[in-house]
Amino acid sequence: MMSKEKKSDKIKYVYYFGGNHAEGSADMKNLLGGKGANLAEMVNMGLPVPAGFTITSDVCTYYFKNNNEYPAMLKREVEKALEKLEKDMGMKFGDNNNPLLVSVRSGSRASMPGMMDTILNLGLNDDTIKGLIAKSGNERFAYDSYRRFIAMYGDVVLDLKPKTKDDIDPFEEIIEAKKAKRGIKLDFELSVQDLKELVVEFKAAIKKNCGVDFPEDPKDQLWGAIAAVFASWQNPRAIVYRKLNRIPEEWGTAVNIQAMVFGNMGENSGTGVAFTRDAANGDNIFYGEFLMNAQGEDVVAGIRTPLKIEKLKESDEKSYNQLLDIRNILEKHYRDMLDVEFTIQDGKLYMLQCRIGKRTAMAAVKIAYDMVQEGMIKPKEALMRIEPDQLNQLLRPVFDLKEKKKALENGALLTKGLNAGPGAACGKVVFNGEDAIAWAARGEKVILVRIETSPEDIAGMNAAEGILTARGGMTSHAALVARQMGKVCVAGCGALNIDYKTRQFYVEGKKDVIVKEGDFISIDGSTGEVMVGAVPTKPSEVVEVLISKTLDPKDAPIYQMYAQIMQWADKYRKLGIRTNADQPNQASNAVAFGAEGIGLCRTEHMFFGEGKIGPMREMILADNVADREKALAKLLPLQRKDFEGIFEAMDGRPVTVRTIDPPLHEFLPHDLAGQTSVATELGLAQKDVKERVELLHEFNPMLGFRGCRLGMIYPEITAMQARAVFEAAVNVIKKGKVVKPEIMIPLVGNVKELKHQEQIVRSIAAKVMDETGVKFEYMVGTMIEVPRGAITAGEVAEVAEFFSFGTNDLTQTTLGLSRDDAGRFLPEYVKREVYKVDPFVSVDQTGVGFLMQHAVEAGRTTRPSLKIGICGEHGGDPESVEFCHKIGLNYVSCSPFRVPIARLAAARIALSEKIARKQAKKDKKEKKDKKKNKKK
Amino acid sequence: MMSKEKKSDKIKYVYYFGGNHAEGSADMKNLLGGKGANLAEMVNMGLPVPAGFTITSDVCTYYFKNNNEYPAMLKREVEKALEKLEKDMGMKFGDNNNPLLVSVRSGSRASMPGMMDTILNLGLNDDTIKGLIAKSGNERFAYDSYRRFIAMYGDVVLDLKPKTKDDIDPFEEIIEAKKAKRGIKLDFELSVQDLKELVVEFKAAIKKNCGVDFPEDPKDQLWGAIAAVFASWQNPRAIVYRKLNRIPEEWGTAVNIQAMVFGNMGENSGTGVAFTRDAANGDNIFYGEFLMNAQGEDVVAGIRTPLKIEKLKESDEKSYNQLLDIRNILEKHYRDMLDVEFTIQDGKLYMLQCRIGKRTAMAAVKIAYDMVQEGMIKPKEALMRIEPDQLNQLLRPVFDLKEKKKALENGALLTKGLNAGPGAACGKVVFNGEDAIAWAARGEKVILVRIETSPEDIAGMNAAEGILTARGGMTSHAALVARQMGKVCVAGCGALNIDYKTRQFYVEGKKDVIVKEGDFISIDGSTGEVMVGAVPTKPSEVVEVLISKTLDPKDAPIYQMYAQIMQWADKYRKLGIRTNADQPNQASNAVAFGAEGIGLCRTEHMFFGEGKIGPMREMILADNVADREKALAKLLPLQRKDFEGIFEAMDGRPVTVRTIDPPLHEFLPHDLAGQTSVATELGLAQKDVKERVELLHEFNPMLGFRGCRLGMIYPEITAMQARAVFEAAVNVIKKGKVVKPEIMIPLVGNVKELKHQEQIVRSIAAKVMDETGVKFEYMVGTMIEVPRGAITAGEVAEVAEFFSFGTNDLTQTTLGLSRDDAGRFLPEYVKREVYKVDPFVSVDQTGVGFLMQHAVEAGRTTRPSLKIGICGEHGGDPESVEFCHKIGLNYVSCSPFRVPIARLAAARIALSEKIARKQAKKDKKEKKDKKKNKKK
Repeated sequence: MMSKEKKSDKIKYVYYFGGNHAEGSADMKNLLGGKGANLAEMVNMGLPVPAGFTITSDVCTYYFKNNNEYPAMLKREVEKALEKLEKDMGMKFGDNNNPLLVSVRSGSRASMPGMMDTILNLGLNDDTIKGLIAKSGNERFAYDSYRRFIAMYGDVVLDLKPKTKDDIDPFEEIIEAKKAKRGIKLDFELSVQDLKELVVEFKAAIKKNCGVDFPEDPKDQLWGAIAAVFASWQNPRAIVYRKLNRIPEEWGTAVNIQAMVFGNMGENSGTGVAFTRDAANGDNIFYGEFLMNAQGEDVVAGIRTPLKIEKLKESDEKSYNQLLDIRNILEKHYRDMLDVEFTIQDGKLYMLQCRIGKRTAMAAVKIAYDMVQEGMIKPKEALMRIEPDQLNQLLRPVFDLKEKKKALENGALLTKGLNAGPGAACGKVVFNGEDAIAWAARGEKVILVRIETSPEDIAGMNAAEGILTARGGMTSHAALVARQMGKVCVAGCGALNIDYKTRQFYVEGKKDVIVKEGDFISIDGSTGEVMVGAVPTKPSEVVEVLISKTLDPKDAPIYQMYAQIMQWADKYRKLGIRTNADQPNQASNAVAFGAEGIGLCRTEHMFFGEGKIGPMREMILADNVADREKALAKLLPLQRKDFEGIFEAMDGRPVTVRTIDPPLHEFLPHDLAGQTSVATELGLAQKDVKERVELLHEFNPMLGFRGCRLGMIYPEITAMQARAVFEAAVNVIKKGKVVKPEIMIPLVGNVKELKHQEQIVRSIAAKVMDETGVKFEYMVGTMIEVPRGAITAGEVAEVAEFFSFGTNDLTQTTLGLSRDDAGRFLPEYVKREVYKVDPFVSVDQTGVGFLMQHAVEAGRTTRPSLKIGICGEHGGDPESVEFCHKIGLNYVSCSPFRVPIARLAAARIALSEKIARKQAKKDKKEKKDKKKNKKK
Repeated sequence: MMSKEKKSDKIKYVYYFGGNHAEGSADMKNLLGGKGANLAEMVNMGLPVPAGFTITSDVCTYYFKNNNEYPAMLKREVEKALEKLEKDMGMKFGDNNNPLLVSVRSGSRASMPGMMDTILNLGLNDDTIKGLIAKSGNERFAYDSYRRFIAMYGDVVLDLKPKTKDDIDPFEEIIEAKKAKRGIKLDFELSVQDLKELVVEFKAAIKKNCGVDFPEDPKDQLWGAIAAVFASWQNPRAIVYRKLNRIPEEWGTAVNIQAMVFGNMGENSGTGVAFTRDAANGDNIFYGEFLMNAQGEDVVAGIRTPLKIEKLKESDEKSYNQLLDIRNILEKHYRDMLDVEFTIQDGKLYMLQCRIGKRTAMAAVKIAYDMVQEGMIKPKEALMRIEPDQLNQLLRPVFDLKEKKKALENGALLTKGLNAGPGAACGKVVFNGEDAIAWAARGEKVILVRIETSPEDIAGMNAAEGILTARGGMTSHAALVARQMGKVCVAGCGALNIDYKTRQFYVEGKKDVIVKEGDFISIDGSTGEVMVGAVPTKPSEVVEVLISKTLDPKDAPIYQMYAQIMQWADKYRKLGIRTNADQPNQASNAVAFGAEGIGLCRTEHMFFGEGKIGPMREMILADNVADREKALAKLLPLQRKDFEGIFEAMDGRPVTVRTIDPPLHEFLPHDLAGQTSVATELGLAQKDVKERVELLHEFNPMLGFRGCRLGMIYPEITAMQARAVFEAAVNVIKKGKVVKPEIMIPLVGNVKELKHQEQIVRSIAAKVMDETGVKFEYMVGTMIEVPRGAITAGEVAEVAEFFSFGTNDLTQTTLGLSRDDAGRFLPEYVKREVYKVDPFVSVDQTGVGFLMQHAVEAGRTTRPSLKIGICGEHGGDPESVEFCHKIGLNYVSCSPFRVPIARLAAARIALSEKIARKQAKKDKKEKKDKKKNKKK
């Protein structure tokens, strides 16, 4: 007994699947990777899957931690699995007569399509090829498989591949030479003899370039392939992808070794990929593509343009019907949209992969919505299926239909491709990823135009507005990645004739239109249209309904789904959602998006408005209180008017107004010409203005004379601003509306600062009530944005009625890191995972979060009713919203277009907590029951 | 029983003293103020003290909190006390025949000499004057007292006083007019009739200027005076004084009402002040001054130059002997040097005040040392008697005797005054406090020259190197305040003829030498000499023995005492004391002052050294690793040599070396000329240098690309510095010395930064050991100087073997406050007590201290052996040293000249804690005993 328990405690490195039973299951993704776990699940569901086994991702972690060595027991476990595989398949690895061939594929916890390496047809050598010929009766197929295997092995394992973009693939080079010699154009025109010669020439190329012989022993091939797949976890494109998708390096990849089935064994073989629903728009149709007589990589790589799945009915009706059945079985089992890969070998269907399908935001919303209608999932599950950031895509602009029509009428249409990534994009043409990054960095909008994209291009795709490719289908690399990123994409646009060298393209049949690098084009990812020139875009359907009000909700199906999802979200979320807005129109937009108040109204933005910068500068240049007050008196009615507009727009919702924050020199021109003009305007000597600007110069303005420090030294500024707010409130109240102003004092590090400013505000409030006879409610609170404010929050809360975390500045001070100056090292820091995410994008929960949590606890100890929010840019970041929920904030405030995202994020974290609580309860009960049973 | 207890619980506002019993005692200073408490103590000791009563400082606090109203019970208590006073004195307040006259004086917990107001002779009016004449038989004395009282009352209570420096006192103006009319020059030449007329004219002036009648009712006079004394707690000079001496505003002042005794009743009356030992040098002699036929204020105000106390023997031997007895009684009772005030009325001696005497640092050391030798106090008590900052004065320069002799031979001596504040000072002459402040602010050393100083001058005195006055004795305002501040002072220099208007002075008899504003003079506060020109100063005796080694300890009595005190301090202190030093000579100075190691060796200072800035700039301007390494290779031997020098100087003591910290642009010239010269030097285009400088420009360099961020991006810099340190260590070890390098990585906010840099350092260490075959010990640690470093200290300590708090930067980041830019608001913040002390001078214990304490706890939880120090400038501030002790640091590190101060501060806090523990134990025991007794 004892020894058995010990045995089962031993770490297991290899999980077998096949013969109607698998050792793994779908919920073992962390260990087996997505591919391995789902293969196991399908085997256990009784679906047709070629047998195989999975080496766990623990081995990967071990491998990198131990200087590229494997755990001691791995070899024996692999050999045992291989024996079982031989038995189940009735074939033998390395056997000359009946050789077992395998594929070796990566498979990590999160899907990383095309980022890591794969090897097919492994097990072939000059002896086993004979068995394959005998078995398949197809010498051409056998040699074609063999030469493909050698090339793949050379590329992946022996690193014999093009080193730069301009290099030609060394194996392609040999093929091209062969075709030239034979006077043929296409690969399939090569004769069996040609293929045989290629095998020899490929091996020679390996020997010459790599200095080693191609390994003839299948076991050597296998271990070489396993190591190469592990190594591909650390290739540059995988690293970039992980960074973009926030996948931790520690996860590692599993390796799947599976018996080969061949889609390229002849015309009754084939291979394909499919989505159980439309991944682009979410429609409930079986959506896929296939190629007969092809290997799977041919479909995904986008080299041949595949056929629509419906066409399979014509080629192989039995397999097509079986696929439709499997689609239903899988959706019912997984209760989600799936992405599957299949191969038909000699008329028999095999499932090679299934996984939860990637989808556009549109599709995510529609599928989630539809599945609720179909009774497949509950609303709260639907919410958990939509990533908050995906909503971004719903709000992106589309083409203005009138403008587009006009453009089309003027002959702007160049060609049409596949509508691979919905949305409208317009930008300057660039022809490679590096340029896309560089041009975007200097503020240009660009469209990345490629013959086809490869994983090396993902950083460039991320920088572009849209992607246009000449080759590849709806499931090609370009299409998949673009949808995931929420990028507009038109793919497989075969008429494009792209010349990378001269950096231009034209469309077959329209040679007179040459589009050069830097020219504007417009692409419609929803229709596949490609147009020359810049076609104006317009708001999305959701925006048209909510903001511009140019669309009736009942004519906007996407909007209706959006609205339903938002309604569900509002039901579950606990956090309030406010917005950062300084102008009435921003405020009403935000309300349309669901904002429940303004969390940050920056008054200094107002000072740049028309007619305001003059008196503002006059105020700053004044050298005594009297002159300053004279200038402030000019600003008062202007500010009051601004506040009236905002209060009306917010219509009874609370409005947090922050008193002036930036250093005064920001309002003055720093160049001589500007100073001269200001001097003339205000009737001062240019010298005096220059002197004043120099006097106001600061070494570290971020830590200088700003925030409440201004109000401490110039209390008359605070007084003017408070008066403008309260007089505006009175005027709007007089119109019968409700107004809830909340005056927020910035940069408080010491309760005495707040006390000083609060007294000014309260005395002005009392005066205004007295003068106007109108009573109003208001609050006085503070930004928490320097560490000392957070540390002394207990004291600060004695005066503050509310806190709002200014996480931009709090991040800068806590990390001692100026956002404006971090460019020289912060990207490198994020790359090296010193910080997993840019701390200005997502709250640094360890550092800044510590202070936030402390402030919440200390503040509420002093004042249990303390209202606490966040108004830094992090307020619209889903991870940060979750953190704010966890530490008990009352609300988050973000820019208007992030409001829907924050609403969803808030709902999701509330639901996650609920689920976790339920699970904990269940676990507790189970533990209890177990104990009870044991006692019995 | 019940009601009696209730009664005793009632707050008591008035404490009576007189008739051999007082309700108060010396230990009730907080409530009664220093003066009131010590008057009570002297009464209880049986010393001759005029009876009176004290209104507690609680009343003052109540008064300011309650809109200048008194507690309800105060009036009755004062009246009761007044009745008792009348009974004890056998006189009646406001009585026409036998009028009781009183003085009304302030008296706070801490001595604030001359800062608040006093009124004498209160109770006089047109009726009671008759009784005074009758009793004294001296009509001239009575009217002189009356006119003085009216003037004082007008000044203090009715605010009839000169409003600017240039105004004449309105009462003085009337006197001057009177004297002019009479054709006389001196006050005492005025006839009785003149004095009578003055009384009438003074009252008329009050009526005219203040719009009120002079109050004839003594009770009205009394309450007016009480209010005025309370109000004087808030006068500007009291506020400045509190700020300078860190006296909290909340303490408030008590008011003492005491029966008048008259030192001006005739030639057998007099008044004086004395120290029981010499307050300037600490000699064990009775040291005082007196004036016959004068009131006390005449001595202190410095208007008449008084006589040495020994002369009293000639005027009144009985009183003199009685004083000598009282001196001994008081010193034995208080076990300290005391400062007393006395009055002789008609041959009878009265004590009016006694308090612990202020003393120079010299005197503090000598008295403490002597009292230990005399068996009066223990060494640990001696330590508690010396304020750490006082030691500063012992280290200040004195004149170079040779140079001074030469100057004197060349006729530099202008005149001699009283040696009121020891030390040597040399600077430019200014004639008022404002100028002293302004000139000092721009870096000038100034000597403040005044006819006499007044409390308004203290801020100016604080800014000056030294103070020279024409009038006033050793206990004049100038002398007292200067000594307390540790300023050099020559007082009562009667030959000076100062003209404020033309801003110049000359010395009587040397009219050819006109000293103008801005001219250099030198004053010797130990001899009283005043010299024209700048006489070079030289190190103090302590410095001469320890540093320059030009003096034998046995010829240096002050040094010997200093050494003894330091020895005692070292016995009690728990904190280690290190120094901040970058150069071998700084290091050995610090060792001479007792430093036990270097806590901060800033390597960047070294780069400015000869031959180093060139390669440094080359390194910065390099645009690739190879060029950078080439430049670094040039720096390596230079840095190594620097470290060798420091290691040799520290001779086995630990040396903490910080890797490069400041932003690189600090090493490049920002002006065109400088850039051109650098370009020429390095063979680069000027344009390129300019471009590079602009590229390196930062908005907030404090939060920019600096500290470990440099080493993260340019690891080769860290590698070079580590190599320089370790190779230097090896070279010095080879000479047979011990070397303990500690590499400190700056600006760490994330353990991954430290880990990265640590690996470089450790790999270089291993290489150097390998290359040289010499083993050495070393540590790797970090500065904690951004909040995130402190917050994540638990993680940081996984890598760091030591922490050192960089409290300069930690203060800047925690408060969000750039020291370079705080000038526009921080002084105002300190003035308004937003921060009680400048947080860059003394650690902000609430904010920064919170993070420090957290870091200590978290760091030690991870690594119990973690060594923790502080190397910010706060390391030499006594209050900060105490804080560091309390939170459990291992050491403080400060500049070499602050080392003795830190040693003493460390001893004092250790002793304070011991005393507090003892007291707590005692309290516990008493409580227990009480409980026991109760049970019985």
